[in-house]
Amino acid sequence: MLAMTAQLNPPTTLRTRGNASHLHRIALSAATRQGAHMRTEDVRAWLAQRRHANVLTVERVPFADLDQWHFVPSTGDLAHASGRFFTIEGLHVVEHDGPHGDGPYREWQQPVIRQPEVGILGILCKEIDGVLHFLMQAKMEPGNPNLVQLSPTVQATRSNYTGAHGGSSVKLLEHFADLDREQVVVDVLQAEQGSWFFRKSNRNMIVETSADIAQDEDFRWLTLGQIAELLHEDETVNMNARSVLSCLPYYDPNPGALHSDVQLLSWFTGERARHDVRTTRIPLASVEGWKRGPDAVEHEDGRYFKVVAVAVRGSNRERVSWTQPLLESVDMGVSAFLVRDFGGVRHVLVHARADGGFLDTVELAPTVQCTPRNYEHLPASQRPAFLDVVLQAGERIRYEAVHSEEGGRFLNTRCRYLIVEADAQVPSEPPRGFVWATPAQLTTLARHGHYLNVEARTLLACLNAASAWPRGVV
Amino acid sequence: MLAMTAQLNPPTTLRTRGNASHLHRIALSAATRQGAHMRTEDVRAWLAQRRHANVLTVERVPFADLDQWHFVPSTGDLAHASGRFFTIEGLHVVEHDGPHGDGPYREWQQPVIRQPEVGILGILCKEIDGVLHFLMQAKMEPGNPNLVQLSPTVQATRSNYTGAHGGSSVKLLEHFADLDREQVVVDVLQAEQGSWFFRKSNRNMIVETSADIAQDEDFRWLTLGQIAELLHEDETVNMNARSVLSCLPYYDPNPGALHSDVQLLSWFTGERARHDVRTTRIPLASVEGWKRGPDAVEHEDGRYFKVVAVAVRGSNRERVSWTQPLLESVDMGVSAFLVRDFGGVRHVLVHARADGGFLDTVELAPTVQCTPRNYEHLPASQRPAFLDVVLQAGERIRYEAVHSEEGGRFLNTRCRYLIVEADAQVPSEPPRGFVWATPAQLTTLARHGHYLNVEARTLLACLNAASAWPRGVV
Repeated sequence: MLAMTAQLNPPTTLRTRGNASHLHRIALSAATRQGAHMRTEDVRAWLAQRRHANVLTVERVPFADLDQWHFVPSTGDLAHASGRFFTIEGLHVVEHDGPHGDGPYREWQQPVIRQPEVGILGILCKEIDGVLHFLMQAKMEPGNPNLVQLSPTVQATRSNYTGAHGGSSVKLLEHFADLDREQVVVDVLQAEQGSWFFRKSNRNMIVETSADIAQDEDFRWLTLGQIAELLHEDETVNMNARSVLSCLPYYDPNPGALHSDVQLLSWFTGERARHDVRTTRIPLASVEGWKRGPDAVEHEDGRYFKVVAVAVRGSNRERVSWTQPLLESVDMGVSAFLVRDFGGVRHVLVHARADGGFLDTVELAPTVQCTPRNYEHLPASQRPAFLDVVLQAGERIRYEAVHSEEGGRFLNTRCRYLIVEADAQVPSEPPRGFVWATPAQLTTLARHGHYLNVEARTLLACLNAASAWPRGVV
Repeated sequence: MLAMTAQLNPPTTLRTRGNASHLHRIALSAATRQGAHMRTEDVRAWLAQRRHANVLTVERVPFADLDQWHFVPSTGDLAHASGRFFTIEGLHVVEHDGPHGDGPYREWQQPVIRQPEVGILGILCKEIDGVLHFLMQAKMEPGNPNLVQLSPTVQATRSNYTGAHGGSSVKLLEHFADLDREQVVVDVLQAEQGSWFFRKSNRNMIVETSADIAQDEDFRWLTLGQIAELLHEDETVNMNARSVLSCLPYYDPNPGALHSDVQLLSWFTGERARHDVRTTRIPLASVEGWKRGPDAVEHEDGRYFKVVAVAVRGSNRERVSWTQPLLESVDMGVSAFLVRDFGGVRHVLVHARADGGFLDTVELAPTVQCTPRNYEHLPASQRPAFLDVVLQAGERIRYEAVHSEEGGRFLNTRCRYLIVEADAQVPSEPPRGFVWATPAQLTTLARHGHYLNVEARTLLACLNAASAWPRGVV
């Protein structure tokens, strides 16, 4: 009977539902501008040294030179012989907007990356000299213009963590795949680019450890203050790292916001309900307005992006290490948050954006998110809202850096990320589809998937970085 | 210049992000067992009187008697001639479970309701004599065994609120379609049954008003305490009302929980990531294992549900008001939460359930959710976990009532909802796919869509009802 009672009422320590200690320790790490392990000014040299050690080159090749990858005869889809990794297929999107999904009508077709597996993007953190440090990897990805950037500790596909490759070769993966729930700081499924991926999401994780982690030339422990400084540099912190860092919980020191959280959620629910986005996967060969040549699948007017192929070669340049398709944007993108203080509290202007690849109609996006070149042929009235305000920002720019999109899928695909003080042209009562929210409110939403799109998550990480290191200080 | 400055820095009152006053006023309404408008004991008579006033009958008819509805020749899908309302199509589901989506394999085909529009389920509330009252409608739905049940103030499809019907005929819809953001208490997209609908969700709303609302025979103001008492009665509060009520925010008086909120979210993320559910819509005529007769589309072994047709007739019984298809479950379902106190705080055992119709792999479901008859042919080892514990609960039952599923889509489809004290057979460390969470934690998750499935939301509303009115008191 004693055993049964013990089982029924085991000695239980309840936890508080919040994790206040996380908030304090994260704030301390953000305020710590020099790390215990490596000086920030030495990170650039270390990355250059890792680039040198890798000695890889990436070259565009014709599709015919792809190894194991082929266009499926029946569909024209680009796929790997194993059926694994990802495919490039077609997508047909029909969107009805307006007050109740009955308004303006958009319809288009496009190629899209389909990769239904959930990957792991994980950053390990550890208290060193009383301050949380985050283990960043110098990782080579073929699409990065500079090849090696700071990435999460672990970037793993499902095949990595299911051992389908015959045992994991991903270092430190066990901290995330065999998770100790006591050590979780962040763990949320977040979506990738809705304009390029079909419903792709990854598990964004931050896990604390007290274990001894063996030194490794590809890994360095950095404080959040150090990473914030590095986020001011071009093409240094990769997309996955930015996404994971954006999910970190931060304490909200402000007295409130223009809208309560319930009001913000209600606005979002209304945006999701009023958009009606219906998607159908179609064969890549049937996508209207796009053409396939020997070197690229591209838009007939040269807009948007291309599907291309690359070969990655090792040091002797004779041997091809691997080949793969990548997407390449036709030009640099612009993603920007307009910001303004209301009642002394900083707000950002968020946009409910519909994309064909989102799981559910809209996600919250930057005020401006586009590749300006794609709109050059259109009259001013059809250019994205606030684009000109951002492009003419000048001294109202509070943060600016060029970052790469994920180098494992995108070739030389870069975006200028901006935080811009709103001027008088920007109304306080924003147009339909936009809302003012505080960074703290976005941080709360980032605990859950499918609220903030990946570009907004990058900018949220940049906002936090700009708080830790205002422009001009760096 | 003054105008511009005013625009840039308008006089701004910040709101607190939380809505503490909502919590207090909701708690007061839940504690108020008699309303200002109608005595609870009179509700039954009022519902009976509305049933009598409606004088409608519902009869099963062969598919050939459906008006405007037909089986599309090319697919066998059941559709309305207008292309509106909903269709009944086929769904092919492939599920890989296991630690990383690489484990046990399930594959099946089934009919499914497809209705991609987002409807509005809204309850209006108002302070009367200092206490929040909620405006409940006595609404007739053809699938309800007793026809009329308590429903939200408004149940509207998109055609209702876009005026596609040539001007709305839905009373009080304007409070929800033309929302005053100051008045929002609840506004969240929640999914319907994942085993019967393909990715259907509705906007669950509670909106406060101070306006004078005209008296109407079909509407009554009730306190949450009154509704709680009525939730103990069989087939009285309809599914949509239960769903909306489950989203109400409640103050959490407890010191904590077994798992912090971050740990709970991490467990959920892990469950979503380890399940791999892939669905393909297929023609209804091609669904394997199902057959179509003149009166029903049904499973070859008589399991699960049938697609049937009904005619709704007015008082003279000669004239058919309308006809429509409905789904009919083959037997009564059972949905139950096992509950247990840990450290003096009540917890419920939640299950991460995969269904073909969910937007994203799994949602949180009751400990047990099934139609037992569908498992009678299987060995004990293949019966749902904890089903026998629930069926043999006896005096460990803390709440029990039979509720109907939505009467606009389901014919006589009822489920026994139970809250059962866990006995010694139920381990404190639950099996994979289950977790102990507090009702307060579920309430926090219900602010967001696609965490709690509709059966779990009903049980959350019942948990709150059972707190306000413990069993035996009613």
